[in-house]
Amino acid sequence: MTTESTTESSSPFTGGLDAHLPGLRALYEDLHAHPELSLQETRTAGIVAARLRAQGGWEVTEGVGGTGVVGVLRNGDGPVVLLRADMDGLPVLEATGLPYASVARATDRDGNDVPVMHACGHDMHVTCLLGAAAQLVAHRDAWRGTALAVFQPAEETGEGARDMLADGFAERFPRPEVCLGQHVGPFPTGIAVTRSGAVMAASDSFRVRLFGRGGHGSTPESTVDPVVMAAALVLRLQTVVSREVGASQAAVVTVGALHAGTKENIIPDEAELKLNIRSVDESVRERVLAAVRRIVKAEAEASGAPKEPEITSLGTFPVTVNSAEATEVTVGALRGALGEQAVVTLPHPLNGSEDFGLFGDALGVPSVFWHFGGAAPEAFAGVDLDAVATRGLPAEIPVNHSPLYAPLPEPTIELGVRSLLGAAGAWLGRAE
Amino acid sequence: MTTESTTESSSPFTGGLDAHLPGLRALYEDLHAHPELSLQETRTAGIVAARLRAQGGWEVTEGVGGTGVVGVLRNGDGPVVLLRADMDGLPVLEATGLPYASVARATDRDGNDVPVMHACGHDMHVTCLLGAAAQLVAHRDAWRGTALAVFQPAEETGEGARDMLADGFAERFPRPEVCLGQHVGPFPTGIAVTRSGAVMAASDSFRVRLFGRGGHGSTPESTVDPVVMAAALVLRLQTVVSREVGASQAAVVTVGALHAGTKENIIPDEAELKLNIRSVDESVRERVLAAVRRIVKAEAEASGAPKEPEITSLGTFPVTVNSAEATEVTVGALRGALGEQAVVTLPHPLNGSEDFGLFGDALGVPSVFWHFGGAAPEAFAGVDLDAVATRGLPAEIPVNHSPLYAPLPEPTIELGVRSLLGAAGAWLGRAE
Amino acid sequence: MTTESTTESSSPFTGGLDAHLPGLRALYEDLHAHPELSLQETRTAGIVAARLRAQGGWEVTEGVGGTGVVGVLRNGDGPVVLLRADMDGLPVLEATGLPYASVARATDRDGNDVPVMHACGHDMHVTCLLGAAAQLVAHRDAWRGTALAVFQPAEETGEGARDMLADGFAERFPRPEVCLGQHVGPFPTGIAVTRSGAVMAASDSFRVRLFGRGGHGSTPESTVDPVVMAAALVLRLQTVVSREVGASQAAVVTVGALHAGTKENIIPDEAELKLNIRSVDESVRERVLAAVRRIVKAEAEASGAPKEPEITSLGTFPVTVNSAEATEVTVGALRGALGEQAVVTLPHPLNGSEDFGLFGDALGVPSVFWHFGGAAPEAFAGVDLDAVATRGLPAEIPVNHSPLYAPLPEPTIELGVRSLLGAAGAWLGRAE
Amino acid sequence: MTTESTTESSSPFTGGLDAHLPGLRALYEDLHAHPELSLQETRTAGIVAARLRAQGGWEVTEGVGGTGVVGVLRNGDGPVVLLRADMDGLPVLEATGLPYASVARATDRDGNDVPVMHACGHDMHVTCLLGAAAQLVAHRDAWRGTALAVFQPAEETGEGARDMLADGFAERFPRPEVCLGQHVGPFPTGIAVTRSGAVMAASDSFRVRLFGRGGHGSTPESTVDPVVMAAALVLRLQTVVSREVGASQAAVVTVGALHAGTKENIIPDEAELKLNIRSVDESVRERVLAAVRRIVKAEAEASGAPKEPEITSLGTFPVTVNSAEATEVTVGALRGALGEQAVVTLPHPLNGSEDFGLFGDALGVPSVFWHFGGAAPEAFAGVDLDAVATRGLPAEIPVNHSPLYAPLPEPTIELGVRSLLGAAGAWLGRAE
Repeated sequence: MTTESTTESSSPFTGGLDAHLPGLRALYEDLHAHPELSLQETRTAGIVAARLRAQGGWEVTEGVGGTGVVGVLRNGDGPVVLLRADMDGLPVLEATGLPYASVARATDRDGNDVPVMHACGHDMHVTCLLGAAAQLVAHRDAWRGTALAVFQPAEETGEGARDMLADGFAERFPRPEVCLGQHVGPFPTGIAVTRSGAVMAASDSFRVRLFGRGGHGSTPESTVDPVVMAAALVLRLQTVVSREVGASQAAVVTVGALHAGTKENIIPDEAELKLNIRSVDESVRERVLAAVRRIVKAEAEASGAPKEPEITSLGTFPVTVNSAEATEVTVGALRGALGEQAVVTLPHPLNGSEDFGLFGDALGVPSVFWHFGGAAPEAFAGVDLDAVATRGLPAEIPVNHSPLYAPLPEPTIELGVRSLLGAAGAWLGRAE
Repeated sequence: MTTESTTESSSPFTGGLDAHLPGLRALYEDLHAHPELSLQETRTAGIVAARLRAQGGWEVTEGVGGTGVVGVLRNGDGPVVLLRADMDGLPVLEATGLPYASVARATDRDGNDVPVMHACGHDMHVTCLLGAAAQLVAHRDAWRGTALAVFQPAEETGEGARDMLADGFAERFPRPEVCLGQHVGPFPTGIAVTRSGAVMAASDSFRVRLFGRGGHGSTPESTVDPVVMAAALVLRLQTVVSREVGASQAAVVTVGALHAGTKENIIPDEAELKLNIRSVDESVRERVLAAVRRIVKAEAEASGAPKEPEITSLGTFPVTVNSAEATEVTVGALRGALGEQAVVTLPHPLNGSEDFGLFGDALGVPSVFWHFGGAAPEAFAGVDLDAVATRGLPAEIPVNHSPLYAPLPEPTIELGVRSLLGAAGAWLGRAE
Repeated sequence: MTTESTTESSSPFTGGLDAHLPGLRALYEDLHAHPELSLQETRTAGIVAARLRAQGGWEVTEGVGGTGVVGVLRNGDGPVVLLRADMDGLPVLEATGLPYASVARATDRDGNDVPVMHACGHDMHVTCLLGAAAQLVAHRDAWRGTALAVFQPAEETGEGARDMLADGFAERFPRPEVCLGQHVGPFPTGIAVTRSGAVMAASDSFRVRLFGRGGHGSTPESTVDPVVMAAALVLRLQTVVSREVGASQAAVVTVGALHAGTKENIIPDEAELKLNIRSVDESVRERVLAAVRRIVKAEAEASGAPKEPEITSLGTFPVTVNSAEATEVTVGALRGALGEQAVVTLPHPLNGSEDFGLFGDALGVPSVFWHFGGAAPEAFAGVDLDAVATRGLPAEIPVNHSPLYAPLPEPTIELGVRSLLGAAGAWLGRAE
Repeated sequence: MTTESTTESSSPFTGGLDAHLPGLRALYEDLHAHPELSLQETRTAGIVAARLRAQGGWEVTEGVGGTGVVGVLRNGDGPVVLLRADMDGLPVLEATGLPYASVARATDRDGNDVPVMHACGHDMHVTCLLGAAAQLVAHRDAWRGTALAVFQPAEETGEGARDMLADGFAERFPRPEVCLGQHVGPFPTGIAVTRSGAVMAASDSFRVRLFGRGGHGSTPESTVDPVVMAAALVLRLQTVVSREVGASQAAVVTVGALHAGTKENIIPDEAELKLNIRSVDESVRERVLAAVRRIVKAEAEASGAPKEPEITSLGTFPVTVNSAEATEVTVGALRGALGEQAVVTLPHPLNGSEDFGLFGDALGVPSVFWHFGGAAPEAFAGVDLDAVATRGLPAEIPVNHSPLYAPLPEPTIELGVRSLLGAAGAWLGRAE
């Protein structure tokens, strides 16, 4: 699949898009250079609200569930379609070397000063939805119904969708027929990938505090060394996936952060780990969670820890499920927008997680979520795309959350806008 | 051994000390409540200089090797004796619950905001040396010669003695006959411990940076996980002492700090460890250092690391060696000051490290270093003191560098002053 | 699915089977009680040959590829159908407690005396194929063509099919239209499971010798301890699946055997491990094999091994692939034989391995391989069979190769015979 | 120290020894070529008894505590002196390449066929004691008293001394004034090493059985893998010495044997480990034993083991303690026999273990045990002997229990005889 094919395809409402692309690119670079941590997306939300208002037609509500922004574009009788983009960045130190790379820092909720980067592409999501929003306004005469543009905070922490829903979302805004969302990813530009049923994994995150007994580095016999305890724990946790999960069962146990001690010659009192667990089947999930808890407890006992470890939830994402019929409709529309061969059906769920599904669940309406490619197609030379799901990406392609992750602005922005418009077009009423 | 015995013993120059003890205790509590990181000891140095000046007689030089303070008390012809105290605190969060516990924080050289605590008792050292200094002034008619009171910064980082020496110490101050120093420790109050020959261990500290390849926590197959690499390294390093060092050889390998990652679902790019290695024999030291380097390299290879680990020295302490004859003289004097049974000869070196020995080495004069007890004797009920060296301390006694470490001000201050005066008295000339 | 449904279904050639079941059960118990190691199946082969001869009609060839037996039943013009059963047992100490449990022992090729058990159900395979062979003879008037009954040795070691083929199989026996094979497994009796495409995994086995330097257990510093080296290797190998294989990629790395040392106080010179690796995709297989080699090498380096480890292949099984069209035909026939709901389509390959596929590959004809259940349906109460593939079996159900594994003779024998006859019947010509 | 010095020294009773050395060497080579496992020393015991009888004067008792042999040489009134040699070999495959290397095999008590080697030098001990016995007979006119020559079985398993004592040793033989014993070791020939107080370590041996749940290697999720459990245990056990034993405390934890599984693709039901633990201080010993038990239990829990591990004692050796006064006397005599510089005082106990001390303990008399060198002095070129204890041996010198261990017959046999005679001479009465 190459991007040329997109020029052959026809999306609705895309007329005049070309002229807006330079502006969207500038917007994208600005957002990329100014990422904000989850629940701190005030600058981004301000830009979103201002842009929607400037487009005209949108009823804009700010501060929904914290920093969320909802635009409602009423355009006559017809279906209501929800389009969602997430806005938050990540505490990652950007290493892309791009001219518009972020040098931002922020204070996280633990009070630490951390770097911030749009390492997951939410800047692209915001840009594409603002671009699509403008086209919906510009082509208002071509469709009927109501568009809901939802700019959600705090997707990374699993809080944003929940917070917006808890803030009266269902009562305050029109009830949609369908919820549509997209995510940029390490696929070739021009490609969209999705599947019916489970499309993204469940995610369970924990903070584990291991308690030892500190002392001087030269007298370990007077201490219970939490660094050794943590190391033994991390290695033992590898056996959950290698020994307790079947080859055909999907699960990942990642220790994303491990912190203990300050000085080389002081054995600290404790160690802190942050764990993330992925699964796509509830019984596998339960087994993995039980195994993790069992191992955490036993490794502390092996060390003779003076106190049981503390395990605190850092959030849970459900499995993201695409409704079968709605997916069929939407995939057809994406094929129309991107080209017949451009939409790849995944053989199994992607392993990332999302809180997008909470909207459809809470509103009782179908959801469809897809990924679209942001990586140079050349990087995939000789790669069998159907095999990527089985074999993984070529090692040199940076993935989401990497300090090197950055989608190509061109043609990704254009394709993201076309995808949203294509998908929305399949659901909105056509004006006669 | 109990503290009662000290009343029976006789130190020189201690007349009138009782009246000063409340003031010394207030000074100690003030120093304890205001610890400063290595090379940042400006408040402490200011207090030291002001107190010496207020005592009269001392020529006070500030800013020696940064924040070092040197007092010279010339008192006629006679031997020159150097008495040394170190001044710096540690980045430890105090947990003693004492009324004068530290709540101080400071910015370390990596720019991090850290807690600070006098977790190693240097506040006690400063207090005792200032107390002894006052007694030397008060009893000036009883001795002849020159006293050098050296208040050294940055012992914890192994920089202070070196910096003071590099700042012209040998040229700027009188050359001593002997260098004397003491350290408070987790022994019963009333006891001093030392030995001829190696009395404290060599120490080698390193920062190790392990390089992986970051990515999303759900796709470890696209990454090289530095957290797992670090965990495997920490566990493998345990085998250096357990398998490559003989039962009768002394060595410790401690990973005092391990830091990697920020978020649970982002696999970071690298991990950082801080190691400290103790040894008392050069060939064992070399074998251990070689083994550590070998294992660091191999564990990175086992992970398929994209880049070799970086190993940077964080400082080296030599073995602290007590000169045989000078130790005999000084131990005799300590017995006189503390009681005949109060001085315990160590069967082997203590495992901590010191840069005190650099003064004697650089000046070409003998050194004597001893430890004195600061813990409640009751805590040692039923403990065979001679066996402590072999069997270690009772587990409930906090050791230096612990967040719970705090010597009893009474009678430790008095005993520390008496020890210094006793030892110095053995070397200074007596006035006829 | 329960076994009752089988009474409703109709297999061809099964008339009169009931009368033979007691005899087949006695045969099964006898085979179970007398298992033989791979390439030592002389008793079993003798029984097979004698029984085929006794049935009449079979041309029996013994000693094909060692202990293999091939029966050819020519029954007029028509298709040739190959039915294969494997005959070897395993070096497992039986723990079923059955009246006919094995107490057999044998000398393996390393010269060790080992227990032997039919822990993989090959006794069931032999029994069912002999039972089906008798029915084919008895119902000779109902079909046309040629039946090939292949009793293969040494499936467990991956040598048997290769040896039979190397022994001129293609030239010596009629060329079949299709190769059919079955395996009993821990599914409920009455159920068959299979899929089109990859149905069983590739398997790569290795012996790894790690070299240390032996010595007295009290002086590890004079040795390089291969036990610690092996332990570190086993733990590190867990990270291959946990970190280098994606959640949706199938791979297993098992260390099935680890041997080092004889006495507690002698550190041995070396350790030996036996590894088995499963995968169903070639690029995943290559990555895993490379990672295993990398880790073996690096862990030896971490230990300072005096010599590089030795890695020797112990055999390779290819992926077992079911031909699409042939599978459709055969599954239809199995549904006819066992009941419409009795045949479950697997969502992904089973993780075991087989050398059955070598026949079809070498002969250039399609293959179909299925598993049939041998476990009490009650054990699966409340278990969603469709979910077994994702979630694994209930923990209390013994699986193949377990010391506790034993299919229920009733009704498993009957169902295995019916399955073979049903599948064969779909390919053989019908007599008019 | 070189062997020349021995020619200058004068031992008692050595006249005529030179003529016997060729015979002793032949005896040594014969014993070396025919090692026997513990409690199976029938050939060796037979040779010993025959030789003693041939020397004349010895009352010989065989079968003391199994295969033990005791010779009593009564030579008038005077002190009784016990000289002890141990006789058993080890299950080690000899790799010395010597012309008289062992190719013996035997059946151990688990029924396994194992190689046997005199890897600990007990053949040397037997040879030297027989040589000394002959000299005592030959020089009967030069001394008065009674010599007890004790040839003990099963030292390696810690059973021999216990069994001989349990067989009425105290009642059946004269009570000695002193028990003397010696051990050949990897020191230069010509050197003897010993110390007052603890001279060899305590030793505690255990068999640990870890219970998992077996199954097919391709479905680890249906099993509890005991190989991974064992690996995690071995690595965790390293932390006992590295973290729970102080730098100046002596302890060793060795896993000398680890066995699990038979085939690469069968996950076994259990793993067996054999552990040996050394210590020289009772409180360190207790801490280490408790830590080992704690870790064994916790690692089984971390794996979710279906059953608690089984820990069985394989024997215990006490600390071998040399009586202070008796050591002074004996060291003086050894200096006389070997040369003034030839006897090195150890700074701390050697880390091996012995059951020799049980004789003195049970009989209530002092014991003295020393080691004598059997290695080529050239191998120690440039090695500071005083430092060997601290730094360990040069890596290329094989140590006891190594497949390469073999003392030089010349001059080790002569020196071993001289040492025994020298030591005994200090205790026996001199004839007037």
